[in-house]
Amino acid sequence: MSIENPNPNLRVDGRSHDQLRPVEFQLGFVETPAGSVLAKFGKTHLLCTVSIEPGVPRFLTDSGQGWLTAEYRLMPGSTSPRHGRELMKLSGRTQEIQRLIGRSLRAAMDLTKIPDYTITVDVDVLQADAGTRTGGITAGYVALKAAIDKLIQQGTIANSPIKQAIAAVSVGIVAGQPYLDLNYPEDSTAEVDLNVVMSGGMQIIELQGTAEAGDFSRTQLNQMLDLAEKGIGQLLPAQVNAFV
Amino acid sequence: MSIENPNPNLRVDGRSHDQLRPVEFQLGFVETPAGSVLAKFGKTHLLCTVSIEPGVPRFLTDSGQGWLTAEYRLMPGSTSPRHGRELMKLSGRTQEIQRLIGRSLRAAMDLTKIPDYTITVDVDVLQADAGTRTGGITAGYVALKAAIDKLIQQGTIANSPIKQAIAAVSVGIVAGQPYLDLNYPEDSTAEVDLNVVMSGGMQIIELQGTAEAGDFSRTQLNQMLDLAEKGIGQLLPAQVNAFV
Amino acid sequence: MSIENPNPNLRVDGRSHDQLRPVEFQLGFVETPAGSVLAKFGKTHLLCTVSIEPGVPRFLTDSGQGWLTAEYRLMPGSTSPRHGRELMKLSGRTQEIQRLIGRSLRAAMDLTKIPDYTITVDVDVLQADAGTRTGGITAGYVALKAAIDKLIQQGTIANSPIKQAIAAVSVGIVAGQPYLDLNYPEDSTAEVDLNVVMSGGMQIIELQGTAEAGDFSRTQLNQMLDLAEKGIGQLLPAQVNAFV
Amino acid sequence: MSIENPNPNLRVDGRSHDQLRPVEFQLGFVETPAGSVLAKFGKTHLLCTVSIEPGVPRFLTDSGQGWLTAEYRLMPGSTSPRHGRELMKLSGRTQEIQRLIGRSLRAAMDLTKIPDYTITVDVDVLQADAGTRTGGITAGYVALKAAIDKLIQQGTIANSPIKQAIAAVSVGIVAGQPYLDLNYPEDSTAEVDLNVVMSGGMQIIELQGTAEAGDFSRTQLNQMLDLAEKGIGQLLPAQVNAFV
Amino acid sequence: MSIENPNPNLRVDGRSHDQLRPVEFQLGFVETPAGSVLAKFGKTHLLCTVSIEPGVPRFLTDSGQGWLTAEYRLMPGSTSPRHGRELMKLSGRTQEIQRLIGRSLRAAMDLTKIPDYTITVDVDVLQADAGTRTGGITAGYVALKAAIDKLIQQGTIANSPIKQAIAAVSVGIVAGQPYLDLNYPEDSTAEVDLNVVMSGGMQIIELQGTAEAGDFSRTQLNQMLDLAEKGIGQLLPAQVNAFV
Amino acid sequence: MSIENPNPNLRVDGRSHDQLRPVEFQLGFVETPAGSVLAKFGKTHLLCTVSIEPGVPRFLTDSGQGWLTAEYRLMPGSTSPRHGRELMKLSGRTQEIQRLIGRSLRAAMDLTKIPDYTITVDVDVLQADAGTRTGGITAGYVALKAAIDKLIQQGTIANSPIKQAIAAVSVGIVAGQPYLDLNYPEDSTAEVDLNVVMSGGMQIIELQGTAEAGDFSRTQLNQMLDLAEKGIGQLLPAQVNAFV
Repeated sequence: MSIENPNPNLRVDGRSHDQLRPVEFQLGFVETPAGSVLAKFGKTHLLCTVSIEPGVPRFLTDSGQGWLTAEYRLMPGSTSPRHGRELMKLSGRTQEIQRLIGRSLRAAMDLTKIPDYTITVDVDVLQADAGTRTGGITAGYVALKAAIDKLIQQGTIANSPIKQAIAAVSVGIVAGQPYLDLNYPEDSTAEVDLNVVMSGGMQIIELQGTAEAGDFSRTQLNQMLDLAEKGIGQLLPAQVNAFV
Repeated sequence: MSIENPNPNLRVDGRSHDQLRPVEFQLGFVETPAGSVLAKFGKTHLLCTVSIEPGVPRFLTDSGQGWLTAEYRLMPGSTSPRHGRELMKLSGRTQEIQRLIGRSLRAAMDLTKIPDYTITVDVDVLQADAGTRTGGITAGYVALKAAIDKLIQQGTIANSPIKQAIAAVSVGIVAGQPYLDLNYPEDSTAEVDLNVVMSGGMQIIELQGTAEAGDFSRTQLNQMLDLAEKGIGQLLPAQVNAFV
Repeated sequence: MSIENPNPNLRVDGRSHDQLRPVEFQLGFVETPAGSVLAKFGKTHLLCTVSIEPGVPRFLTDSGQGWLTAEYRLMPGSTSPRHGRELMKLSGRTQEIQRLIGRSLRAAMDLTKIPDYTITVDVDVLQADAGTRTGGITAGYVALKAAIDKLIQQGTIANSPIKQAIAAVSVGIVAGQPYLDLNYPEDSTAEVDLNVVMSGGMQIIELQGTAEAGDFSRTQLNQMLDLAEKGIGQLLPAQVNAFV
Repeated sequence: MSIENPNPNLRVDGRSHDQLRPVEFQLGFVETPAGSVLAKFGKTHLLCTVSIEPGVPRFLTDSGQGWLTAEYRLMPGSTSPRHGRELMKLSGRTQEIQRLIGRSLRAAMDLTKIPDYTITVDVDVLQADAGTRTGGITAGYVALKAAIDKLIQQGTIANSPIKQAIAAVSVGIVAGQPYLDLNYPEDSTAEVDLNVVMSGGMQIIELQGTAEAGDFSRTQLNQMLDLAEKGIGQLLPAQVNAFV
Repeated sequence: MSIENPNPNLRVDGRSHDQLRPVEFQLGFVETPAGSVLAKFGKTHLLCTVSIEPGVPRFLTDSGQGWLTAEYRLMPGSTSPRHGRELMKLSGRTQEIQRLIGRSLRAAMDLTKIPDYTITVDVDVLQADAGTRTGGITAGYVALKAAIDKLIQQGTIANSPIKQAIAAVSVGIVAGQPYLDLNYPEDSTAEVDLNVVMSGGMQIIELQGTAEAGDFSRTQLNQMLDLAEKGIGQLLPAQVNAFV
Repeated sequence: MSIENPNPNLRVDGRSHDQLRPVEFQLGFVETPAGSVLAKFGKTHLLCTVSIEPGVPRFLTDSGQGWLTAEYRLMPGSTSPRHGRELMKLSGRTQEIQRLIGRSLRAAMDLTKIPDYTITVDVDVLQADAGTRTGGITAGYVALKAAIDKLIQQGTIANSPIKQAIAAVSVGIVAGQPYLDLNYPEDSTAEVDLNVVMSGGMQIIELQGTAEAGDFSRTQLNQMLDLAEKGIGQLLPAQVNAFV
């Protein structure tokens, strides 16, 4: 990582430009579902619960494979002013995020090893300080693994359908400089916002980059990907440690 | 309390027939909203957040009074099997419960002392083991008081609009005998289910009794009300202690 | 009944505090459905129609029992100003009322005696002067009995699934005093509103009491229950007379 | 009328081919709204209520004219099997009918004489035996006139906005022969169905003809229009007599 | 046709009162569906696509006949100002039109000859200058025939289910005079608007006439029907020529 | 471009791995809106219409800037089997795409130069053969420029709010090899799908990459970006030529 922190005072929480927020996973926060975790990425707090139930969507009937889907919501108290619940229709933002989380976590799975089951990963944001979609993927993987471990322990399934870990982080360009793991004050003024999802083998699973203002070069893209690799390189062992 | 516990072994959690589940309030669990509490009534866990924002519903424009409304949801992971989120339309059950919570908490308030503001109390059930509507009222009052205290501290309002505490408990008849504070195994086999909301002065605010099977006599009603008074008599000081 | 009418002039229609409004049942007002009644409780007029059709909701498939459900609506002309029809979603009030009517009338039935049928009780308020939910239960029972009688007469079923009569009445506290069977001017200024549903054996089936302003004591609750018993004691024979 | 009744036994109710069903108007059936009528066309029974309220739809703001709109519903008990209520969306049939009723009754009115008011005509079918849309127009006019009369009597408006009467009838071709005022058994087997709306001056306001099976010639169209003129020629005085 | 053009300058496009707009059919404009046509009636441009798929609606299961249904939309760019897309619910106008198109085109078909298939005719208005519903029927028939021809060519069906051609045109009374094939400036000021659907044998399939202002006589009806016959007499061969 | 076409026979349409499909823009295909284009990218055909109307969304009131939004739909005949219209709610896919198109085209604009106006870009897919979202952006820019040119010509606005061209293309990895501008057979078997939006200055505006199966390396990302730059380098002059 050769980029110097251009302005060590910029980050309101005192982090260097290539530093993650403190990460914390509290497994089993809710006892009812197969797996659950209360995850904290700095001031972004998420509750992930994973339910596993018989049956697959119609398009997978007799396909020999199971399914994994995700739902995502900002809880009403997670923002100030209050975030009104989405009724009647989901916002485009919510739909995009829950599709991204589901798609990313399916990349963790060999769904043929859990045929005839549907796994639902619910990501509910208790407190929002940016990075909720990437946090949802990283924490969702932890809750998913917890749920699968429980099924194996119970003897419901013999072999784990998990084939690799998945973690994600956001990077961005603020005031012309790349930063890792943006919080809300940074995210809301960023010129570029890039969400990176990677596998345990550090390969790319999903990439979503948007120039909120102006545009970005391939050189800047590479700087941001370097930061993302560094961050994901720390999130992957943190996921493992949650089970220690 | 003259009723002997008819069958001390009936309650799966070892309680006597007139005993509440352990109550716990964790104030400020979420920092974003004006007030919040993570409340536990045995295995029933609720997150209550309270948001206070300028503006009132149209029917109160220029009325000189503010408003308080409540929303209630079972979170997807709060039950097993998973509880699907309500989209497009709320179930009758959800609507009934959130109307009850709102009505009950309005009885705590002198809304003319907070004109031009709307208070929203969100009750989200993290883990469901019966008694979520009465728990939502009891915990909702705690979060409401926390939010009002914050507004006073901030100087937003000078005098508290809270005129009295509100607490609630469920009682019921199981196998012919009255019990206090039913948990799910009890609630699901109860012949009669009675929710009682009372003020700090131990007067009745709301009463909802349903014979799920058979019917009940006025004598049984009085036995149940005796139990409810005992339970609420313990919940009211527990609410106070949350702020110590 | 030991309570003196505190103010004989209070009631706009000249009734004493413990007097029902005139009750009238016109059986067979609509010929199409299995049973129907045009019911008048003073100026509150309701049309109840009962349809009985093969099939049960999914959750009762192969359960050996039938089902009874109710729908309730204020018709547009039943109030002034006009009551807009509920489209897209039912109000919480409508849902609460139709759930109450359905639950109360199911208490009249042994649904195992009418397996594989669904009974729908439609309560449409033609003219609203308060007491529509309790009137809907009382009149709904009459239309239900008419429909069952017809099925027996036609030989569709051999034994009546009706196990007991059900009737309901509203009571309340207006200006500090308890009154039976509130009309709209009374209902809209009542401090307490209590709906009581009882069986033919004068046992309680459902109780819904709300302090609209202030609260109420257990003594006041008992005074209101005394009035409700008196009223239901007159409604039950009136239901019987509808068939004479 | 030169067409001989081709088969005097065809009509199940014994009418000749050019004979209306018995018509009956019961004014003031519901007291709450400005005007109401219970109308019977043979076994087709309709409740029409008319509400008049301040305000106009946005597209008429500052236009100097009022508005008239209509709503139409089959009540659940009006058919056997039960007609499920329309929620979430209105059927195409319902929308077509209520648009037709509204359009036809607007032709009765000079809406510039009732500026800033919206008149809503509600047609609720209590019992359905065909001809409900034309019956709704004919009875709707009666309820509309009753409501306008009341407004004039109350002094709310000085001059009647009604400029002409409106009445409607259905005609059709059954087994190759034209018939007036079809009932359900006829309507459900008709090859052609024609609804005719006319003014008090016997001019055409609206014409809707559909070949349900096959097609029809201009000669048949003229035969049907002759029958419609005969029927409407009797409905117009019946409307007048409702007020005697 | 004995009616003289009362004012040869009235029509903005220079047509005589009994003259159609130029008609053009471009077959196969879209290759994906079974049949398609881009149709132009003057400045009214429509895209009709016809899809044929296995399966019938539930009410036709095991009936031995197939089904034909139609959908109609004004595209957003077809009008100025922009026509907002209909979401959540279709307007009454859209529903009426698509029901009319479907009903009219079913009159072209012997649906027993295409059992177990559903034909969907989509009429999307690219550019709107009045006459879109009648144009949709006329062009819809062309696309329908193209689709059926393709099925026969592919050997999917042996005999054509088409039993007759269907065409439609609008006529109206503008400033007291009857005109054929109204464009938007005429349509928006017409006193009477009459849509006529006829079969290849020049018999009436459907008739929808509305007095937008005032009323109309049977004489005027006959004048309009004469014009409609003239127009449809030219549209039917134009449909045939589309396949040459 | 150093990558050899690994399998010149792979592409069903005979293109080399780094070759775009033939591009065609037909300006003014629909005359009603401010701007329109019928665009063809091989067998993918899109209709883009652009409407410009006074007014801005509420969140921009008094902000001194206008707005641009996009809507996207697959037309029913654009796919086989037929693509059902989205009613009641938009699919997540549709919402994602129209948000992407809107965001990308806003990057073309200085919206402060067109204050108080809302521009709506409608992208309707007539025929779908993959690449509809990137095609919608590329063609949407052409229709947008046509609409702005018209406004300038009409004197409605003095200076063009367009600050740069925007074009987009899809690239992907099929059978392990990178390809430019995937058609449907390629897209449906691709392991990686990457949509790239660039400005006239060849800077990145938006990047959306998804591993449909497996994952991808940064080396592969760079190969795909090279191809995208080549494609966009050809689309930008094609956009200019549309106006020649």
